[in-house]
Amino acid sequence: MNADAPLGVFDSGLGGLTVVRALREALPGERIVYLGDTARVPYGTRSAEVVTRYALLSARHLAARGIKLLVVACNTVSAQSLPALAAALPIPVVGVIEPGAAAAAARSKGGNIAVLATPGTVASGAYQAALRRLLPLSSVVARACPLFVPLAEEGWIDGEVPRLVAERYLSDLRRGGIDTALLGCTHYPLLARVISEVLGPQVTIVDSAEATAASVALLLEKHGLARTTGPSPRHKTICTDMPDRFRAIAERFLGRPVEAVELVDLTP
Amino acid sequence: MNADAPLGVFDSGLGGLTVVRALREALPGERIVYLGDTARVPYGTRSAEVVTRYALLSARHLAARGIKLLVVACNTVSAQSLPALAAALPIPVVGVIEPGAAAAAARSKGGNIAVLATPGTVASGAYQAALRRLLPLSSVVARACPLFVPLAEEGWIDGEVPRLVAERYLSDLRRGGIDTALLGCTHYPLLARVISEVLGPQVTIVDSAEATAASVALLLEKHGLARTTGPSPRHKTICTDMPDRFRAIAERFLGRPVEAVELVDLTP
Repeated sequence: MNADAPLGVFDSGLGGLTVVRALREALPGERIVYLGDTARVPYGTRSAEVVTRYALLSARHLAARGIKLLVVACNTVSAQSLPALAAALPIPVVGVIEPGAAAAAARSKGGNIAVLATPGTVASGAYQAALRRLLPLSSVVARACPLFVPLAEEGWIDGEVPRLVAERYLSDLRRGGIDTALLGCTHYPLLARVISEVLGPQVTIVDSAEATAASVALLLEKHGLARTTGPSPRHKTICTDMPDRFRAIAERFLGRPVEAVELVDLTP
Repeated sequence: MNADAPLGVFDSGLGGLTVVRALREALPGERIVYLGDTARVPYGTRSAEVVTRYALLSARHLAARGIKLLVVACNTVSAQSLPALAAALPIPVVGVIEPGAAAAAARSKGGNIAVLATPGTVASGAYQAALRRLLPLSSVVARACPLFVPLAEEGWIDGEVPRLVAERYLSDLRRGGIDTALLGCTHYPLLARVISEVLGPQVTIVDSAEATAASVALLLEKHGLARTTGPSPRHKTICTDMPDRFRAIAERFLGRPVEAVELVDLTP
């Protein structure tokens, strides 16, 4: 493996572009190949068996493109399938759960932490277990907020509808005295302002994406795989269905336009 | 093929249970095998190629169980893949588009019809084409309402959130003078009351499910395939992932509990 090889980033859809955004800021010299499995999105309401089966298809496709490290930007896959991916690939595999939990544990003052995520991630218990390992005396509550993903994809990220939806999911947490909310789904950063307004200014919002980018930087350094010289990197974006819809929505997640999107068929 | 064979009903998820509900009312003697492709749901935001690929897997599975007729309860599949399914199966295949469009055309007084559906169904133009064929002088507008599906699955079918979402999607239609709204997605009947409140009492709400059940009854009669004697039918419900979640939500769509749900793996 050489430092010039690209980083692979995988997500069920386009939410993982929030992780790409953080990676591009933290590691401007790295080339990134992104794969969004839009033919099978969403993963958050599927079983662990099906999520692992789908994730292996995408991970093997990225590995075949010569990536030096795989970032699993999907919280559901990170929660349920990381051991299976690590066993199947000859390269390091980094998920978003451990870095996100570590960042929340570091920033929480009182150890009262709420994890907001998809039903699949909440049911897996992965964030809760990671936080209890890091902060054994913490009090962790996890809350599934399934409508946040379609709201983010519709671009309804401020105004009355998202505010009311957030109220319905989160108002009892405000009364519960939490001090930190961990956004455990790549779509949720788009709704961070609304979430913060509903939870109140005393609650710190922590996003897994930045923590994950920092972990990746450390790991590349440790393995001598960081790309620090050479021309500006050219990135690559791939999806498994509806590339035009992907492009149209991608800018909101990446913070800049996506030039071209390649379509691949991962049917086994 | 004999009259004792079951009817097959296929949908991307559990929305098609609104069609099963109408079929059980119209045809109480028929046994129904329902397949919801919950490992690949939703279809409404996927391309025609991918939708057809997924639909063929499910249709062939039902055909192998000896059904006498296939009802495609999924609007997206009915709009995009009916010819491919009819070509692949040796039995009659009935979709929801033609019956739904015919019912709307029959009930519209002024020919000003709105079709409410998923982005995929709207983009296919199938309802619009069917309505213009039936009522050449009609004025048809189609509107994608992607948040209606997650709202119905969350069970948020009345109150402030669905009302505001419906206002945002539909308020300009109220000003446009439509007289009929065709619910072109199997999930939307659960939101019929909110939709009707937003559109006003002068707008007739037409649901494809009942019209489809009537079409199926006619077709069975014509082919001598109606089951009119014998003991009460035993129904069968199958899905491709998350049978417990399926059962928990199914009752809202079917109007009664689902006893047991069989899990099948349709990976090719």
